[in-house]
Amino acid sequence: MPNSDNSPRYDVIAIGNAIVDVMAPCEDELIDELALNKGGMTLVDEDGAKRLYDAMGPAREISGGSAANTLAGLSAMGAQCAFIGQVADDQLGEVFAHDIRAVGIDFDTPVRPGPPATARCLIFVTPDAQRTMNTFLGASQFLPPETLDADAVAAARILYLEGYLWDPEEPRAAMRRAIEAAREAGRKVAFTLSEVFVIDRHGDDFRALIEDGLIDILFANHLELAALTGEDDFEAGIAALEGKVPTLVVTRSADGAVAVSDGKRAEVAAEPVGEVVDTTGAGDLFAAGFLSGHVKGDSLENCLTRGAVCAAEIISHYGARPEADLRELVAKKLG
Amino acid sequence: MPNSDNSPRYDVIAIGNAIVDVMAPCEDELIDELALNKGGMTLVDEDGAKRLYDAMGPAREISGGSAANTLAGLSAMGAQCAFIGQVADDQLGEVFAHDIRAVGIDFDTPVRPGPPATARCLIFVTPDAQRTMNTFLGASQFLPPETLDADAVAAARILYLEGYLWDPEEPRAAMRRAIEAAREAGRKVAFTLSEVFVIDRHGDDFRALIEDGLIDILFANHLELAALTGEDDFEAGIAALEGKVPTLVVTRSADGAVAVSDGKRAEVAAEPVGEVVDTTGAGDLFAAGFLSGHVKGDSLENCLTRGAVCAAEIISHYGARPEADLRELVAKKLG
Repeated sequence: MPNSDNSPRYDVIAIGNAIVDVMAPCEDELIDELALNKGGMTLVDEDGAKRLYDAMGPAREISGGSAANTLAGLSAMGAQCAFIGQVADDQLGEVFAHDIRAVGIDFDTPVRPGPPATARCLIFVTPDAQRTMNTFLGASQFLPPETLDADAVAAARILYLEGYLWDPEEPRAAMRRAIEAAREAGRKVAFTLSEVFVIDRHGDDFRALIEDGLIDILFANHLELAALTGEDDFEAGIAALEGKVPTLVVTRSADGAVAVSDGKRAEVAAEPVGEVVDTTGAGDLFAAGFLSGHVKGDSLENCLTRGAVCAAEIISHYGARPEADLRELVAKKLG
Repeated sequence: MPNSDNSPRYDVIAIGNAIVDVMAPCEDELIDELALNKGGMTLVDEDGAKRLYDAMGPAREISGGSAANTLAGLSAMGAQCAFIGQVADDQLGEVFAHDIRAVGIDFDTPVRPGPPATARCLIFVTPDAQRTMNTFLGASQFLPPETLDADAVAAARILYLEGYLWDPEEPRAAMRRAIEAAREAGRKVAFTLSEVFVIDRHGDDFRALIEDGLIDILFANHLELAALTGEDDFEAGIAALEGKVPTLVVTRSADGAVAVSDGKRAEVAAEPVGEVVDTTGAGDLFAAGFLSGHVKGDSLENCLTRGAVCAAEIISHYGARPEADLRELVAKKLG
């Protein structure tokens, strides 16, 4: 039921892949041997996933999914969140649902019976802490737009969308419907570009969304910025989007991040980290930190600093879900 | 097929729970609230497991099982190993099978179709690094003795048995059959007592196995030693078993360990650890280290030292499967 007074029930509602990460350390030689796209995300089918899993060392399973990771971070910092994503009726689906609900996130998308299985992402982590992701989308690619809870979308201050999920057809249609619902309710839409290959395939859609003024907050890394704008020069890329999206946030790995919002610009250096163990989720948690400030009306600088603190926490351990008390880390940093 | 020349194909073959650990940090308050047996292992049924999982924070899944953990350590140190244990035809079963095979352990027990699901152990890790385990045995309790590969048992230098698995009927019968097969082939039998509650229920069986001279290497912690012998005094407990088992290994948590073998006695202090994160698997990896030396004919002192090094590695991170290079750590310690 829509809130009669239109006051938001959620800070952020996200639509994303409902995915369990299967992570194992590996040497660079294995990346070469398996001809993997080092540092990137590649979609694989069930056979491909099986082949890679067979080649993988002993692994650990930790819930993941880009937007879900972002919500886990937001929730840890006290934001009210809801997640929309498709799991199958299987054990990994139970794991995903448990882990997201256990941090206080509403997750009511009905389980999908029958095959395919819940999505998993096989992540090879090399000694340089770089993650190489191979995703079997499984149930996650079947998110029927007709089951979308438009009232829940309308009840959230921000709708957060994961670019990865623009690739499969059903979730793309669901996200389009969600954008409409958010717009009708006067809510903001945040979008993360996710990965260069998604832009290669759907860049026209993304540019159209931007031109139509449907994206309020855009998250990208420097490579995605270049792919989207066609500008290899970082500043030229920023300039190409400035004014077209009210808030633009661009991360640059170890070189920190830049945000431009309503004519103001802020920059932040990367937070120092004792040992970088696994970079999985760095961008997701940067977005979490940024949004945690944004929903509170914090300054652009502070939003970036929050992002940097959260990203630093996530890369200091395996897995893309926070382990330390993010609220405490942020409070300590912001003083 | 038995080896015609009787030379062992495996250093160690183990029978144990085929189990996936579901681990989450928690505060002591939750242990109290859920009335859990802190520091111990408790068997729970499917409903109990569901209730505890619902109360648990976000978790990570890592393959476990006491004897399987021991083999993973042994394999990491170069020993040839095989595992016998029952998984169901489900995703957690695939995870368990993958992880154990990925470290080079032979695992050929046929998957069990239909319910119950693969065993899982819900592990609550408190800030003192103590683990509180709640095991849903699932498929693991159905290990039909008639499917036991007696030839594989006969082909291993040591048969290693997990006391936990003495509790359910089918695996107990399978283990009795395995002891016979090992004896007939002139192999050694190692046994870990696992947990006081197992001794409370099956102490008479264990004492009979010992009296009948069927156990060559016995692993216990100081609490289990007391429960088995009825002697509260540590030295009295040792004395009660000395001479009855050719090799007795007793761990004492932070106080190190003692071994008595053929009239000789050795002691070792616990290895210093930077930060104790999670004590799950400490005993399992101590046994791995000890046996890795034993199969090579190393001195009693060195066997204990190997055990202490492996236990120290496992308690420095989450999960009961080794993450660092155990062979390197042992080599460094033994010089």
